[in-house]
Amino acid sequence: MMASGGEPPATKVVLLLVPHMDASFHAALRGRFRVLDFFASSERSPLPAFLAAAAAAPEPPRAAIVVGAGLIPVDAAFLDAVPSLRCVTCLAAGVDFIDLDECARRGVVVANSGRVFSADVADHAVGLLIDVLRRVSAAERFVRRGLWRVQGDGYPLGSKIGGRRVGIVGLGNIGSQIAKRLQALGCTVFYNSRTRKDSVPYRYFTSVHDLAAESDVLVVACALNKATRHIVGKDVLEALGKDGVIVNISRGANVDQAELVRALQEGRIAGAGLDVFENEPGAPGELFSMDNVVMTPHVAVFTAESMSDLRDHTIANLEAFFSGEPLLTPVLPHSPVM
Amino acid sequence: MMASGGEPPATKVVLLLVPHMDASFHAALRGRFRVLDFFASSERSPLPAFLAAAAAAPEPPRAAIVVGAGLIPVDAAFLDAVPSLRCVTCLAAGVDFIDLDECARRGVVVANSGRVFSADVADHAVGLLIDVLRRVSAAERFVRRGLWRVQGDGYPLGSKIGGRRVGIVGLGNIGSQIAKRLQALGCTVFYNSRTRKDSVPYRYFTSVHDLAAESDVLVVACALNKATRHIVGKDVLEALGKDGVIVNISRGANVDQAELVRALQEGRIAGAGLDVFENEPGAPGELFSMDNVVMTPHVAVFTAESMSDLRDHTIANLEAFFSGEPLLTPVLPHSPVM
Repeated sequence: MMASGGEPPATKVVLLLVPHMDASFHAALRGRFRVLDFFASSERSPLPAFLAAAAAAPEPPRAAIVVGAGLIPVDAAFLDAVPSLRCVTCLAAGVDFIDLDECARRGVVVANSGRVFSADVADHAVGLLIDVLRRVSAAERFVRRGLWRVQGDGYPLGSKIGGRRVGIVGLGNIGSQIAKRLQALGCTVFYNSRTRKDSVPYRYFTSVHDLAAESDVLVVACALNKATRHIVGKDVLEALGKDGVIVNISRGANVDQAELVRALQEGRIAGAGLDVFENEPGAPGELFSMDNVVMTPHVAVFTAESMSDLRDHTIANLEAFFSGEPLLTPVLPHSPVM
Repeated sequence: MMASGGEPPATKVVLLLVPHMDASFHAALRGRFRVLDFFASSERSPLPAFLAAAAAAPEPPRAAIVVGAGLIPVDAAFLDAVPSLRCVTCLAAGVDFIDLDECARRGVVVANSGRVFSADVADHAVGLLIDVLRRVSAAERFVRRGLWRVQGDGYPLGSKIGGRRVGIVGLGNIGSQIAKRLQALGCTVFYNSRTRKDSVPYRYFTSVHDLAAESDVLVVACALNKATRHIVGKDVLEALGKDGVIVNISRGANVDQAELVRALQEGRIAGAGLDVFENEPGAPGELFSMDNVVMTPHVAVFTAESMSDLRDHTIANLEAFFSGEPLLTPVLPHSPVM
């Protein structure tokens, strides 16, 4: 096969394993790389066949772009299927579905979305917190159903934001941005993370349980990994207590969802603001009738501006890889991310 | 009638013209004042008869407590009906339904809720702003209807909060608190008010029209009076433009609601977050099907904590009045409030 004039160098072959991507992102990738797009074909072959064909090509892919939803786990089997891969770039901060140890063992570098989404996720977390405490979405339903006109004033009181003690689980890029916003709202910020940060003025807790016991609101903002899976379980919910509120903008599996649902059903916690769930897409139906719960469909990262930033950031990581330069936002095994 | 041991001095007679009031507020008032409660009687006499009876009593009321909803306008007719009144305390920051000139002419002092609600209203304004830009309530409906599970990912993108130019109409207690929160969210704050404030770093606009033209979001936080009624009308909405968003947490009549509804229907502005409306209770039915509108039932002040603060503040104002001391939060004709 001969390279024609404007065609990108054939060695820059990228596997694209992303179901939804806007046109400008697609165009930007195709302008720079030879893109093998799994989700593009209308008569799509199964993933193993697609990967086998890619791997057997004269110029097999050296990089892959994957999404954070974990649709396609990057595990030993995946890496075995495409042994030419040397770089995986993830369109999310959380890389819980990527086996970082396996990647490291095979010399595959991994990049995530870095800080591209941090501000948007922090904004969404604060929006969920205000929404739950001040009953915004519930009040919205009350108005939209015409009940305000019929029932008049006397809608149930919300809770004041100022003065609330908010415990943040994971004080990475996102957690730090959440903390900054909460300070402007007059909240007292506490945190738990793997290590104490000397650079921040917030009180540190070595355990999530103790953090929950001292907090009115627990905001989960840590990466999902073996150590954090179900880090908010029955005992932490119990420590948070019946006036406590959970906000989760990280990964659904950081919270034991079955326990959370039970605690909400039994009034053992006061409410929840959730952008992420176990078994997405979809949220537990038991929550659909609860006015003290606010649910969004994993959109904390979804703004037009962040998608444009993500495009530029992803291309910059791939260009760095193909040029033999260090990645902009490498993720190593056991490195703190999010 | 002889005063018994624990009875409050009979001269501290207070007209209570408040339909909804929690038990602790009632109890606190009755512990200190002789309360004539218009809304308490189950077989309620019409207001004129109630006021006439109060005025004709051996010890007529010298103070009145009124609500912000403007249920009972404090105008010349009202003041004529109870000529013994010398003090009106309002359970709101906005006193648009009180004729301040008439009160001043008759030597009736007026107090409002001061800063009791400022933080809560500012929090709610920020909640509405995040909600509209990030589509929280709309996303909530999408999840709650089970559409996420059925349709999967690909929910429409929201807009980034950071970098937005937010114009605040009225930089009083509430507007200032909103500005502080918006700065933490990375917004650029502009403002309009009757006079430029030398103490703030935000860019000042002499006209609301010019403010709207330079802003992505217009937050209405001014008092309602003759000068501000419909201050956001057709021309201001046009200046704000099709990508612009309105947030109103002040009074419904500060916005020309019919024009706002038309602008939303015709896509001439991008969205609205509204806690207040013309002709409350109730919001325009035309908005009920719009995903770019968030509506709450005039609850920006409603937290358990602010209600407790309001109780203490109101009693302090009344105690000051009955002791011949200056009110804590007097409102004079043409004084900037909110």
